Amino acid sequence: MDSVETPFGRADDALGGSAVFFAAAASLLHPVQIVGVVGKDYPMDALHRLSRRQVDLSGVTVADGESFRWAGKYGFDLSTRDTLETRLGVFANFKPQIPAAFRDTEFVFLGNIDPELQLDVLNQVKRPKFVACDTMNYWIQGKRTALLKLLEHVDCLMVNDSEIRELSGDWHIHRAARWVIERGPQYVVIKKGEHGAVLVGGGKVFYVPAFPLEDVFDPTGAGDAFAGGFMAHLARADALSDRHLRLAMVYGSAMGSFAVERFSIQRFDEITPADVTTRVQSYRDLVHFELDTP
Amino acid sequence: MDSVETPFGRADDALGGSAVFFAAAASLLHPVQIVGVVGKDYPMDALHRLSRRQVDLSGVTVADGESFRWAGKYGFDLSTRDTLETRLGVFANFKPQIPAAFRDTEFVFLGNIDPELQLDVLNQVKRPKFVACDTMNYWIQGKRTALLKLLEHVDCLMVNDSEIRELSGDWHIHRAARWVIERGPQYVVIKKGEHGAVLVGGGKVFYVPAFPLEDVFDPTGAGDAFAGGFMAHLARADALSDRHLRLAMVYGSAMGSFAVERFSIQRFDEITPADVTTRVQSYRDLVHFELDTP
Repeated sequence: MDSVETPFGRADDALGGSAVFFAAAASLLHPVQIVGVVGKDYPMDALHRLSRRQVDLSGVTVADGESFRWAGKYGFDLSTRDTLETRLGVFANFKPQIPAAFRDTEFVFLGNIDPELQLDVLNQVKRPKFVACDTMNYWIQGKRTALLKLLEHVDCLMVNDSEIRELSGDWHIHRAARWVIERGPQYVVIKKGEHGAVLVGGGKVFYVPAFPLEDVFDPTGAGDAFAGGFMAHLARADALSDRHLRLAMVYGSAMGSFAVERFSIQRFDEITPADVTTRVQSYRDLVHFELDTP
Repeated sequence: MDSVETPFGRADDALGGSAVFFAAAASLLHPVQIVGVVGKDYPMDALHRLSRRQVDLSGVTVADGESFRWAGKYGFDLSTRDTLETRLGVFANFKPQIPAAFRDTEFVFLGNIDPELQLDVLNQVKRPKFVACDTMNYWIQGKRTALLKLLEHVDCLMVNDSEIRELSGDWHIHRAARWVIERGPQYVVIKKGEHGAVLVGGGKVFYVPAFPLEDVFDPTGAGDAFAGGFMAHLARADALSDRHLRLAMVYGSAMGSFAVERFSIQRFDEITPADVTTRVQSYRDLVHFELDTP
């Protein structure tokens, strides 16, 4: 549960967390199975609203104790935030068990958690076609060896620019991406907030800008919503071609843009798959140009 | 003349200045007429190399005194720089006189100088089709009234992100662009360095990323080279359509990417129009995607 303060308002104990944002976004495109843990204090009714929309919650454990809580406050331009509080609660002893019915999943996203647990989750999945993982500075500093081992087993690392700089020790994000690719993943997605996102891999680079929103309300969860859109497009297309990886980036960026328009996952309650299609189409106009006729 | 120190080396008293970078880039696409002032100490031989490539230097005055000098040092990631020295020299008393032969020019770029002088230059040109201007924080703070008056007479303001934020008082660059558009210009180009550039106007937004260079050597002059590519494409196409404004953004970005690959205007001595075409084509691969078939 997140308590968030932005220059535009505040939300207390709102639905939050990687899996929730991921699922709220992804389920607009494709069925989702989530694995996670909540405490007895969790507003399960709110979570169950997701199950009305292709989200299988049978991998969510309700454990004795308090739910994970994060509280943060954003600066006036929303590009910086201070963490006011982090209470692990039941998350501290979480050891994900993948339900038998989930083990054939072909598209797997490993949310931001201890890389040892990410690898443990991956070992419980039979033969995924495509595995992407997130991480954060905390693990880059504290569990570097485990994280590097995990990278040998994933197809795509999805991080923000400061994370890949810290991981690789190189401020230049394209060199940093190649550093990661030499360590296992075929692809790297670098999320740059208001500056868009970039996919590096397969000898190519693909950029997608951030959608030029009139108002950004709350950046929390944008990265996880991005991951949801990205993975759901690939799963739905059941394809890993250059064409579909590019489109997955655009779906990811579109979902990130919806996430920031309201607190929590509110915006995903309001929109339909048709709204997603409309936004994805409008990205085309943002970046496409025609070369001179020869 | 610029003296520049970057993490990769240094250059002393190298050819520099807005008009020089603009002309070096633009002349790869279209003839250029430049107006400016240098001191008796200026290396005119180096400047005359430009005249071999469609640059008309008859508007350059050689005045008694020292040339304008700037010295700066960039931080390790090249995104910050300290000005070590600025000596105005003959620039202090510069009052641009547009040669009679230049007064029919249809595409006019007003480099970064006192906005009163920019307006004075504009008044000397007969009936331009398209006028773009640059400015900087120094004028935004010190000559705000004159700058706002100038904006009523130009078609396009071309600035960086920090400048448009300061000018409009709004950190949100899309709102800031609209603020500018309400004051005269139809278009705003916002240069964001490593984060690319954006064109706002005509009810549209168009993004172009920065080219993913292996090595950025010296960022000095990238913005002026961008302006050179942008204006030269429009002049060459003799068109202001959405299609050509987009292409102009890509030519601008390509020229900016060449500028930063070497000190001063060195790179523009090495490349040909065919190299520019190749780079512009490679932008297509950076951003293009195909929508789902319906």
